Amino acid sequence: MRDATLGIILVFKFLPYIMYRSHNCGELRVADVNKEITLSGWVQKSRDKGFMIWVDLRDRYGITQLIFDEVRTSTEVMKLAKSLSREYVIQVKGTVIERESKNANLATGEIEVLVTELTILNEAQLPPFTIEDETDGGEDIRMKYRYLDIRRNPVKNSLLFRHKVTQSVRNYLSNLDFCEIETPYLIKSTPEGARDFVVPSRMNPGQFYALPQSPQTFKQLLMVGGMDKYFQIVKCFRDEDLRADRQPEFTQIDCEMSFIEQEDILNVFEGLTRHLLKSIHNIDIDAFPRMTFDEAMRKYGNDKPDIRFGMEFGELNAVAQHKEFAVFNNAELVVGIAAPGAATYTRKEIDGLIDWVKRPQVGALGMVYVKCETDGSFKSSVDKFYDQEDLKKWAEATGAKAGDLILVLSGPANKTRAQLSALRMELGNRMGLRKPDEFAPLWVVDFPLLEWDEDSSRFHAMHHPFTSPKKEDMHLLDTDPGKVRANAYDLVLNGNEIGGGSIRIHDKETQALMFKHLGFTAEQAQEQFGFLMNAFQYGAPPHGGLAFGLDRLTAILGGQETIRDFIAFPKNNSGRDVMIDAPAQIDQAQLEELSLALNIKA
Amino acid sequence: MRDATLGIILVFKFLPYIMYRSHNCGELRVADVNKEITLSGWVQKSRDKGFMIWVDLRDRYGITQLIFDEVRTSTEVMKLAKSLSREYVIQVKGTVIERESKNANLATGEIEVLVTELTILNEAQLPPFTIEDETDGGEDIRMKYRYLDIRRNPVKNSLLFRHKVTQSVRNYLSNLDFCEIETPYLIKSTPEGARDFVVPSRMNPGQFYALPQSPQTFKQLLMVGGMDKYFQIVKCFRDEDLRADRQPEFTQIDCEMSFIEQEDILNVFEGLTRHLLKSIHNIDIDAFPRMTFDEAMRKYGNDKPDIRFGMEFGELNAVAQHKEFAVFNNAELVVGIAAPGAATYTRKEIDGLIDWVKRPQVGALGMVYVKCETDGSFKSSVDKFYDQEDLKKWAEATGAKAGDLILVLSGPANKTRAQLSALRMELGNRMGLRKPDEFAPLWVVDFPLLEWDEDSSRFHAMHHPFTSPKKEDMHLLDTDPGKVRANAYDLVLNGNEIGGGSIRIHDKETQALMFKHLGFTAEQAQEQFGFLMNAFQYGAPPHGGLAFGLDRLTAILGGQETIRDFIAFPKNNSGRDVMIDAPAQIDQAQLEELSLALNIKA
Repeated sequence: MRDATLGIILVFKFLPYIMYRSHNCGELRVADVNKEITLSGWVQKSRDKGFMIWVDLRDRYGITQLIFDEVRTSTEVMKLAKSLSREYVIQVKGTVIERESKNANLATGEIEVLVTELTILNEAQLPPFTIEDETDGGEDIRMKYRYLDIRRNPVKNSLLFRHKVTQSVRNYLSNLDFCEIETPYLIKSTPEGARDFVVPSRMNPGQFYALPQSPQTFKQLLMVGGMDKYFQIVKCFRDEDLRADRQPEFTQIDCEMSFIEQEDILNVFEGLTRHLLKSIHNIDIDAFPRMTFDEAMRKYGNDKPDIRFGMEFGELNAVAQHKEFAVFNNAELVVGIAAPGAATYTRKEIDGLIDWVKRPQVGALGMVYVKCETDGSFKSSVDKFYDQEDLKKWAEATGAKAGDLILVLSGPANKTRAQLSALRMELGNRMGLRKPDEFAPLWVVDFPLLEWDEDSSRFHAMHHPFTSPKKEDMHLLDTDPGKVRANAYDLVLNGNEIGGGSIRIHDKETQALMFKHLGFTAEQAQEQFGFLMNAFQYGAPPHGGLAFGLDRLTAILGGQETIRDFIAFPKNNSGRDVMIDAPAQIDQAQLEELSLALNIKA
Repeated sequence: MRDATLGIILVFKFLPYIMYRSHNCGELRVADVNKEITLSGWVQKSRDKGFMIWVDLRDRYGITQLIFDEVRTSTEVMKLAKSLSREYVIQVKGTVIERESKNANLATGEIEVLVTELTILNEAQLPPFTIEDETDGGEDIRMKYRYLDIRRNPVKNSLLFRHKVTQSVRNYLSNLDFCEIETPYLIKSTPEGARDFVVPSRMNPGQFYALPQSPQTFKQLLMVGGMDKYFQIVKCFRDEDLRADRQPEFTQIDCEMSFIEQEDILNVFEGLTRHLLKSIHNIDIDAFPRMTFDEAMRKYGNDKPDIRFGMEFGELNAVAQHKEFAVFNNAELVVGIAAPGAATYTRKEIDGLIDWVKRPQVGALGMVYVKCETDGSFKSSVDKFYDQEDLKKWAEATGAKAGDLILVLSGPANKTRAQLSALRMELGNRMGLRKPDEFAPLWVVDFPLLEWDEDSSRFHAMHHPFTSPKKEDMHLLDTDPGKVRANAYDLVLNGNEIGGGSIRIHDKETQALMFKHLGFTAEQAQEQFGFLMNAFQYGAPPHGGLAFGLDRLTAILGGQETIRDFIAFPKNNSGRDVMIDAPAQIDQAQLEELSLALNIKA
C-alpha cells in the first residue's frame, strides 16, 4: 500500500535546480587551478584600471580575488563589472588561475578567479561605515546597523567563537551524563533578588508571569525529581539599571547535581574549564588553586582576584603603626603592594598614580610610596617618620625586591582594600601583566552566607536564599549572622567571576529558618516559595550546582574584556535595541486585552 | 611571580570528602559480586518479612535491590531499615551478592546488595500518587507535583530522549558549519501573526518589549550580516487561546541559509531527519516523497497527510453524479476512501462510523457506503440509485479491492475533504495502521502564498509575510491573489507537521509589495518592519530557512501523540503553571514602577 502511494507521490517534478556556489570564498588554493567554479558573496572592494578590474569577493569564510580583463572577459561582463560597488551581492562563474603577485596574508592569496559570468544578486547602498576590521563607524551607528557590523571579522569571529564554546560545553557535559532540560520562561515574580521583568497574562486578568532571573528553583525541583545531572544553556533576565557591559537579557550555563558534595562540583567544572582551555587554546591547566573569600579579600582586596600577576597585599599595621605618622596610627588598616621594577618611576609618574587613587571612582585620600633602590636602600614619601630598618620591614611584608615600588594606602579596612585592589588592577593593566592569552582560573570558596544591606536594614543572601550555611557555623545564625559561612564558591578567571554556585539547602526546616533570617514571615515564605518547601517534604536529595555567565566566559576565553561583540544583537545602556527600535508603544486595544492602563507619572 | 602566589594559595585545605555513591542504581551486575559499594537513591518499595527486609532503591539510572537480614545486618541498621518508607532518600554501603531468585526484567536483576550501613538522607511524606510507570494519579495532581511525576519512567525517559534528540540535532548542524546564534528575547511587538506576549519596560515608561513568536526577522538579519548557515534551538511565545497540546511557550529548531534554493534546504533537512531516525531508531529512510499542497488536499484532504497508510481519496463526481441520487448531484464534491478489509463490518459498526462523521466536531450530514464483497459483487446503501457497473467504477476510483469498504462523503469541496480526512485518520487509528514505530516523512510544497481571512476581510500570509511568491505566479498578485503559490514547504511526519519554511523575499520592493497586499499602508510597513526593509538595501543575499517544532518532533520520534511528557514543566490549558501557581498578582509598587495600572473589566 505504502509503495503504491509513494509511486504516485514521486511523479511530482521539480524545476531544474540552480547552484549558487560550488565553493566558498575562503577555500580555493593553487591545487584548484584550472577548475571551473561558482562563487557568491559580497563585493569587499573593487579596483578598476580600465582594461582590468579586480574585485575582492567576501563571504563568511574568507575573501577571493576576482579578475576581469578586456582580453579574456566578454564586453558585456566587463561592463557589468564596472557597475559593481561595495557590498553588492554577486554570483560569478569562472576559472581558478594562479596569481602573478601572490598575497601571503590571504588564505586564498595564491590564486584568483578569472570571471566569465557575473550576476548581480542584489545591489547595495553604500554602508554607513566601512566593513573592515578597523571600521570608521562609532558604537552607536554600528548598533543601529548591527547586521552590517556582523559582516566585520571581529564581530563575525566572536559569534563563531561563541558557538564553538557552547558546542564544546554541551558535548563535555553530555558525555558526563548531564541532561539538558528546558525550564519555563513564563514563571512567577518573587521579591527576593534583582527586579523581575514581568509579562501580563491576558487569560488571567490582573496577573503576571515573570521572566526568570535564573532557573534556580526549577533546577532544584529537577533534583527533587531525580534528574541528578542537569544543565541548560539558557537566557536569564534582570530588570536592573544597566551599567556598561551589562545586558537585561544574558545567557547562563546552568548546572545542578544531586548526591554530591562541593568537591564533586568543583571537580566537574574544573574539568569543563580545563576542557575548554585545551580544546580552544590548546592550553593545559594543571592546578586550579583555591582560596577562601577571607583570604582573597586580605590578599587582593577583591573576591575575584586576577592571579596572573602577584602584587599581593602586605598588611603593614604591625610595622607602620605606633610611630610618629598619625595618618597610619589612626587607620584601621595600613596595606601596601609592591609594583615590580617601578622604583625608577619619576616623581611625575608617582604623582600620577596618587592622583589616580584620589579620583572619586577610587576615593583614596592619599598614598604613601617607598622606592626600593637597587643598592638596597629605601627612599619614601614618609622618610620623616620611618628609618631604613622600618622600611625594610615594609618591603618584607609586601614581598618587595630591589627595584620595586611600594605603594601604601590606609583607612577603614574594607574600603582601603577595595581602593588598593583597584590600584593593583590598574597597575596590572598599565604594566602589561594581564596578558589576554594567559589563563589563570581560581576557586574562591567559603563566601559569607549573608550580607548586611543598609537600604533595607536587613541581611540579604549573598548568593541566594537557597544556599546552605556551613554546618559548623549554624550556631552563629542567631548571634552573629554576618559571620556564618556558606557552602558557596565562585570560579574566577583572570580577575572576572565567570561562575558561581553553592550546595543548596535540601530540607524544609533549614529553608524555613533561612527565610526567617532574611526577614520573611512564615506566610510570605510559604506564598513565595511554598512550592519548593513542599517539594522538600517528598524526598529531596542533597544537591548543589553552579552557573557560568556565558557572555563573559566567552569574551574572556576570546581574550576580550567586553561582552558586546559576543552577543549577536545586544541592547544599549538604556536597555534599547536601537536597530529594531524596541521597546515601543503598543496599541490601546492590546493594553485593554491585557486589562492594563498606562499610569505614567510626570 | 605566579608560582609563588599559587604556592601560598594552595595551603588552604578542604575537609575530608564524603562520597555519596560509588555506583548508580542501574549498573551493578554479576561481575560486581563481592564488591563493597555505596549507593544513594529513593526507596521505591520495601518488603518487611520481619527477619528480612528487601528494599528497591531507585535513581535516574535504574533500580537495585537491597537486602537487610537479621543474621548479617546489625540490629541498629535493621531497626533503621524498618523505618523506611516510600520515597525516602537513603544512602547505603554494602556488598554486592548474587541473588537466589533472579529477576530477568531488571538490568540489575541478577544481584542484590547486602547492606552494612544505612543513612537516611531525607525523609519523605507519602507521595500523592504512586511513582510507577502506570500511576494512580490524574493529570491535574501530576501537574501540581510535577517534580514527583518526573521521577516516573515515562516522563523521565521522555526528558532524557529530548536531550538526546537536541544533542543529535546540534551536532549534525554544527558539523555542516551551521552556527548557533542566540537572538534576543526582548524584541518588538508586531500586529502581524499571532498575539504577542509583551513585557513592560520600566526604563522606558509606557513602552513594551514583546517576546518573540519566532526569531524570523533576526535570522533574516543574520543572513544580511553574512552568517550564511544559522540555527538556534530557541523558545518562542504565542499568546493564543490554548487548545489541548498547545503551550504558550514552545521550542523551535530554527534554521536559515543564504545562497540557496529550496532544493538545498530540503536536502539539508532531509539529511537531518534521516540522521535522527538512523541515530535514534536505527531506521534508514531512502526516499522523502514530495507532494504539492494541492495534491495533498486532493488525495488526503489535508496538508499534513499521514502516508504510513493508503486510503487515498477517490473523487467520484464523474461516476456518481448525473444519476438519480439528488444528494450527490447537488454536491460540489463526491469523494470516497476504501477501508481495507472492512467489508465484513456489521451494520452496527457501519452505523457507528456514520454517527462518528455526523458528530459536530466532524460535521458531515451523512455517509454512503459500499461493501466490496469477496465474490466481486458490491452491496451499498445506495443500491436504489446505482447498479453493480456504477459501483465497480467507484471501486476503481478509490482503489478498493475485494473485501474493502468504500465510504463516501459529499458536499462543498473543502469542507467535505476535511471531513473525509478526519474519517481517514480515525480509521487509521482504529485499524492500527498508524504504527508508532514506523516513520514516513513527506515534503508538502507549493503552499498558497495568501489565505483569505473572513474575520478581518483581507488576505493573510499563509506562512508569514516574508515568504517569497513563486516568480511565475507574481502576475496573479493583483488579479487572483489566492492563486499565487509560495516558495514554501512543510515537512510532515506521520500526519504531523514537524517543520515548515520558505524561501524569503530578499529585496525591498517585493517586500513592500507583499505588505501592500496584506493591507499595510507604506507607513505601517515602515513603522513595523522598516529595519528589515532598510537592511535589504545594504546587500541582502538570497536566503531561506525552516523551523522544526521541537516539542512535537520529539514526541513523534518518541512514538507519542502528546507533547506534554516531553516538556519538563508544561502549563495547563489555561496557561497556568499549577505547580508554582503562575501567573500571579504583583505588588502595587511593582506596577507603579512599570508606569502601569490594572484596568480589569467586570
